[in-house]
Amino acid sequence: MARGRLFALGLGPGDPELVTLKALRLLRAASVVAYPATEDGDSFARRIVAQWLDRGQQEIAIRFPMRPGPPPIDIYREAAARLAGMLERGSDVAYLCQGDPLFYGSFAGVLECLTRNYVVTLVPGVSSPMACAAAASVPLVQRGEMLSVIPATLPEAGLAARLATSEAVIIIKLGRHFAKVRRVLQSCGRLEGAIYVERATLPNQRVLPLAVVDSETVPYFASILVRQPSEPSG
Amino acid sequence: MARGRLFALGLGPGDPELVTLKALRLLRAASVVAYPATEDGDSFARRIVAQWLDRGQQEIAIRFPMRPGPPPIDIYREAAARLAGMLERGSDVAYLCQGDPLFYGSFAGVLECLTRNYVVTLVPGVSSPMACAAAASVPLVQRGEMLSVIPATLPEAGLAARLATSEAVIIIKLGRHFAKVRRVLQSCGRLEGAIYVERATLPNQRVLPLAVVDSETVPYFASILVRQPSEPSG
Repeated sequence: MARGRLFALGLGPGDPELVTLKALRLLRAASVVAYPATEDGDSFARRIVAQWLDRGQQEIAIRFPMRPGPPPIDIYREAAARLAGMLERGSDVAYLCQGDPLFYGSFAGVLECLTRNYVVTLVPGVSSPMACAAAASVPLVQRGEMLSVIPATLPEAGLAARLATSEAVIIIKLGRHFAKVRRVLQSCGRLEGAIYVERATLPNQRVLPLAVVDSETVPYFASILVRQPSEPSG
Repeated sequence: MARGRLFALGLGPGDPELVTLKALRLLRAASVVAYPATEDGDSFARRIVAQWLDRGQQEIAIRFPMRPGPPPIDIYREAAARLAGMLERGSDVAYLCQGDPLFYGSFAGVLECLTRNYVVTLVPGVSSPMACAAAASVPLVQRGEMLSVIPATLPEAGLAARLATSEAVIIIKLGRHFAKVRRVLQSCGRLEGAIYVERATLPNQRVLPLAVVDSETVPYFASILVRQPSEPSG
């Protein structure tokens, strides 16, 4: 029997309408649907496409621990083994990815653990930096500028060092790192004009000047857009 | 009469199937379709969605000069004035953007020249860095890494300085800057493992180790993926 194929589907930042035609077609065609989930089974990726599921597809939730830090490699190995089992039985598998499969996604870890025996098709998706810029209605990056995407999880000194050499910046994965990030931005003089975007493209999206944000309420899916330090525009 | 609304539609990297459901819905509903074009009228953005046009929509090509450097501000001002004219007449206008509207796109320049009198809806799209990573089947950026997006148009010293402080990197807009970029990567020891991706997601897509690319044939829509200098994975 022919092996199944694996499709990693980038589903975008959260609005189901930001799913691509290709991801939707491949989602509907797959007999197995796998997705990352929290320990209690909730899956943001699955919620994005929930309206198109329930068509008799088998579902596999890959549960990741919610504690800080990178997940143990065993989770990726086990996930890869479960997917490989499905592929060996001839099933086509769609792995659901919020945003893009290869932009800070769990799928990269799974992909590294899969043997080269399987055909893997990667479908890129709309990513959170672009969704945040659209929500805030400001350019993410222009002309000859460099764009830096910086995870808020870095230690304070690492954040400061990276900001010092960056032009246009988006800081992602805020959550409990928010107060630290704001402190660093203030100390390097880049607080003014910085824009906070929470849950971009979802019904409860919020866009605020960074200075007025209450640090107690910041979720993981929140970002800060920091523009190039001012200079004559070219 | 009510003013029309302006929709900036991110159409993704080139494969028409990577258009989002939202962009397609808004494209079909608009009575006017505007897009950036070269001096001879060719428009990459229009080609992505050509199969969905020809429904009696009025088309406006915004012609940008093909010479190097940023386009003169007058082009943006004129484009904004033409769009404003349509909006004043009550027409809904879809502005087509290859990739994403706010990621190095011409739309940011138009947006800056439009008065605040108009409702502008920005629809993010799949961007070339994510498309290139998918084409190459390698992670774009993972875990706590910073991602730097660096335009190849920078001078040699500027490229070298930015590479020195970068982890995961994608260098975009290669074209005639290719030889310079490869020279810089070689001199900072980051040539090995670098991957060249040309026209990601189009039928003539090419993925090659950087070292074997012929610098004479490199188009503008080509990128180089440079991974984090090797260290134990965490």
